[in-house]
Amino acid sequence: MSETQNYIQENKQRFLDELCDLLKIASISADPAYSKDVLNCADAVAKHLKEAGADQVEVCETKGYPIVYGEKIIDPKLPTVLVYGHYDVQPPDPLELWESGPFEPVIKTTPLHPEGAVFARGSADDKGQFFMHVKAFEAMMKTNSLPCNVKFIIEGEEEVGSESLGDWISENKEKLKNDVILISDTHIYSNEQPTVTTGLRGLSYVEVEVEGPNRDLHSGLYGGAVPNPIHVLSRMVAQLIDEDGRITIDGFYDNVEEVSLEERAEMNKLKDDPEGFKKSIGLNGVEGEKGYTTLERTSIRPTLDANGIWGGYTGEGAKTVIPSKAFAKISMRLVPYQTPEEITEKFTKYFHKIAPENVKVKVTPHHGGMPYVLPSDSEEFQAAKKAMEKAFGKEVLPYRSGGSIPITALFEQVLGSKSVLMGFGLDSDAIHSPNEHYGLFNFYKGIESIPYFFEYYTDLKK
Amino acid sequence: MSETQNYIQENKQRFLDELCDLLKIASISADPAYSKDVLNCADAVAKHLKEAGADQVEVCETKGYPIVYGEKIIDPKLPTVLVYGHYDVQPPDPLELWESGPFEPVIKTTPLHPEGAVFARGSADDKGQFFMHVKAFEAMMKTNSLPCNVKFIIEGEEEVGSESLGDWISENKEKLKNDVILISDTHIYSNEQPTVTTGLRGLSYVEVEVEGPNRDLHSGLYGGAVPNPIHVLSRMVAQLIDEDGRITIDGFYDNVEEVSLEERAEMNKLKDDPEGFKKSIGLNGVEGEKGYTTLERTSIRPTLDANGIWGGYTGEGAKTVIPSKAFAKISMRLVPYQTPEEITEKFTKYFHKIAPENVKVKVTPHHGGMPYVLPSDSEEFQAAKKAMEKAFGKEVLPYRSGGSIPITALFEQVLGSKSVLMGFGLDSDAIHSPNEHYGLFNFYKGIESIPYFFEYYTDLKK
Repeated sequence: MSETQNYIQENKQRFLDELCDLLKIASISADPAYSKDVLNCADAVAKHLKEAGADQVEVCETKGYPIVYGEKIIDPKLPTVLVYGHYDVQPPDPLELWESGPFEPVIKTTPLHPEGAVFARGSADDKGQFFMHVKAFEAMMKTNSLPCNVKFIIEGEEEVGSESLGDWISENKEKLKNDVILISDTHIYSNEQPTVTTGLRGLSYVEVEVEGPNRDLHSGLYGGAVPNPIHVLSRMVAQLIDEDGRITIDGFYDNVEEVSLEERAEMNKLKDDPEGFKKSIGLNGVEGEKGYTTLERTSIRPTLDANGIWGGYTGEGAKTVIPSKAFAKISMRLVPYQTPEEITEKFTKYFHKIAPENVKVKVTPHHGGMPYVLPSDSEEFQAAKKAMEKAFGKEVLPYRSGGSIPITALFEQVLGSKSVLMGFGLDSDAIHSPNEHYGLFNFYKGIESIPYFFEYYTDLKK
Repeated sequence: MSETQNYIQENKQRFLDELCDLLKIASISADPAYSKDVLNCADAVAKHLKEAGADQVEVCETKGYPIVYGEKIIDPKLPTVLVYGHYDVQPPDPLELWESGPFEPVIKTTPLHPEGAVFARGSADDKGQFFMHVKAFEAMMKTNSLPCNVKFIIEGEEEVGSESLGDWISENKEKLKNDVILISDTHIYSNEQPTVTTGLRGLSYVEVEVEGPNRDLHSGLYGGAVPNPIHVLSRMVAQLIDEDGRITIDGFYDNVEEVSLEERAEMNKLKDDPEGFKKSIGLNGVEGEKGYTTLERTSIRPTLDANGIWGGYTGEGAKTVIPSKAFAKISMRLVPYQTPEEITEKFTKYFHKIAPENVKVKVTPHHGGMPYVLPSDSEEFQAAKKAMEKAFGKEVLPYRSGGSIPITALFEQVLGSKSVLMGFGLDSDAIHSPNEHYGLFNFYKGIESIPYFFEYYTDLKK
């Protein structure tokens, strides 16, 4: 194994250069204007897999963007690790807040990253993270140390709900047969306190529309006498959360897993710097559901957030209009045992219920995803913990994350295997935000940890 | 005078063709991308004034867009009518709701306009209306029937607050000396019930910003634990109007003129079709300040409307972001004796007062304007009433409008003369909205009425 680690050390700079080339491709799946870039990115990923030593590499067509597949079967009797990642990225707007181009990667140091970090859209989510697997695989191949079989699926629709993935894995069950799924698309608690993610929240995402008058009206001639959709929508959005920070949707909390006081006490040991948290995002006060800490609010509790709102005149200067319609995008993070179908239905019913009679409302569901939990006494978790402890030289703790990777529940359902969420980002990486970055320390620790995981996991399965 | 009216009848088609050419110029003052079109439009107006017979025609430079001036002094001892209008137009968005290009005028019939209407941005507000004055002037000049002096000022910044006009008229007081100001930038009650506008509401327009975290955040990692600016802004906008439709800003109603019950009873005779009103804008219910009718809410009562709201992700698809900032544009219509300065200050104070401590808010004032009233027993009103009665062959009533023409108060203050608001539009003309149009019946009735006004006003002053 030390030969593998040596190979990694000797090729560090090239690994980083290759990552930077990948980050230059604007593979924004949400915006059809970038479809060519998304396709180009799939081709680039396939090329990397081939060069690293994978067989059967294929850019698999779907109804949406392709899924890149590759494998190395060294012995059918040995266990198989399925690596999942995604090559698509979030839209980079607002562009004016980026200090350098989102698709012109640059290396800069920051207080948290004295060894440097690569700044670009997708650096942490998820190009920089899935690419660690490609490079760790290359290292094991070049040093003849791959201890088990490996399969890769790198998809291009994660940021828009992985819509094609479900059908595709159902159709390719046999080909994708595996013992465990390994995913790096989460973050650790800090570089000083590495963690393995043992829980993820689910997601329900809807778009709402409020229609008042059937056309835009002059606010001088009609103002004060008709329902203004902006006001109606504002009142309705305000009404979704009460003064105690509780979501008011009927039955919203019905199926929520109540975490025991012991587990809550244990978990709250982790986050010990509320002032640092506030300072890191420029706030003098936080808010949320009464009776829970910030850490709990972002992990074991379901939440609701408007992610976008728009209506009327939003350009420069002044326009005195009452718009016909106003819109919002609203997402809800779910915890075990809520389901996106259940919550989307409850939201839709409630949103219609609270709408005043003199407007029309419409709710359009976007993608959703199930919450996920990996027990910390499972052998999958233990292999990851041990691997990261070897690479970091520190104790590794279990950690519940607030984010969502909807496909973990899908994998378990269709392929019958557990996902190990061995991510290496930091929550300060600004994923989905301007100036997304990924620490070089984290990138390299990831590449170092992965071969150890393969080794320990194979040992455990013997 | 019948010679003048004959001239008008004989040249109807040419007048309309010329108006259509003017409507092809996208003179959008709010958007700097159209500055060249605005300047071209000023030149076109100057050319029309010259051709109609005006002297001293000049495109007068200001800090902003130019003001077009022209005059015809036939005898300094005779009264002088100052005609005001504006050649700039509102932005046309949302473009997708236009049935034909906003700057490609077409003539179509509608149920309200069986004789046809010209559809284009600015057709009613205000190109179609000020152009009636140019053509009526041409008719009087060509038939040697101009009974008094006339001056024209056609400005290019009305839709963005007439910012340069105040300084310019102060600097040109002597040149602009007049006895009465005549403006066609309002509407009549209906083609069956013509009216002269005797009151206009004032305007206070502000833009507000709510800042939560100092950067956009991932809603999975931070959702439910930080103040989301969209929610905060929604709550604040909702809070500006209470359940009775009253504006909650401290002291907002302090200086409001309470209109007598007699006057309210008289005014309510006019609007006798609430079902037709609702149907015309596709609503099954109206709302507004408790204790007032729709007509009162849109004329003698002050109002508050959000004209735009935006924040977070508003593109296609889904993005799970908590934005750093959310914004709204809010306008308030004022009645005598509120002032825009007073109301903007009260709004700003209140908006800061209701902001939660964990966000930052900013209020930026845009333009404002004073409310205006023309007594219905004044000789200016009587001349307009008589002129329109002659043209329409019907009784003409006084009418208070909800819109604002801020410069009427300015004219009175600086030039010392009253403005007569002899507009010919309909409130269904969709000004500031997609598919703005102006009835040909209205356009021609305006051109016919104007020479009568000149005649009757000159007679009254003798």
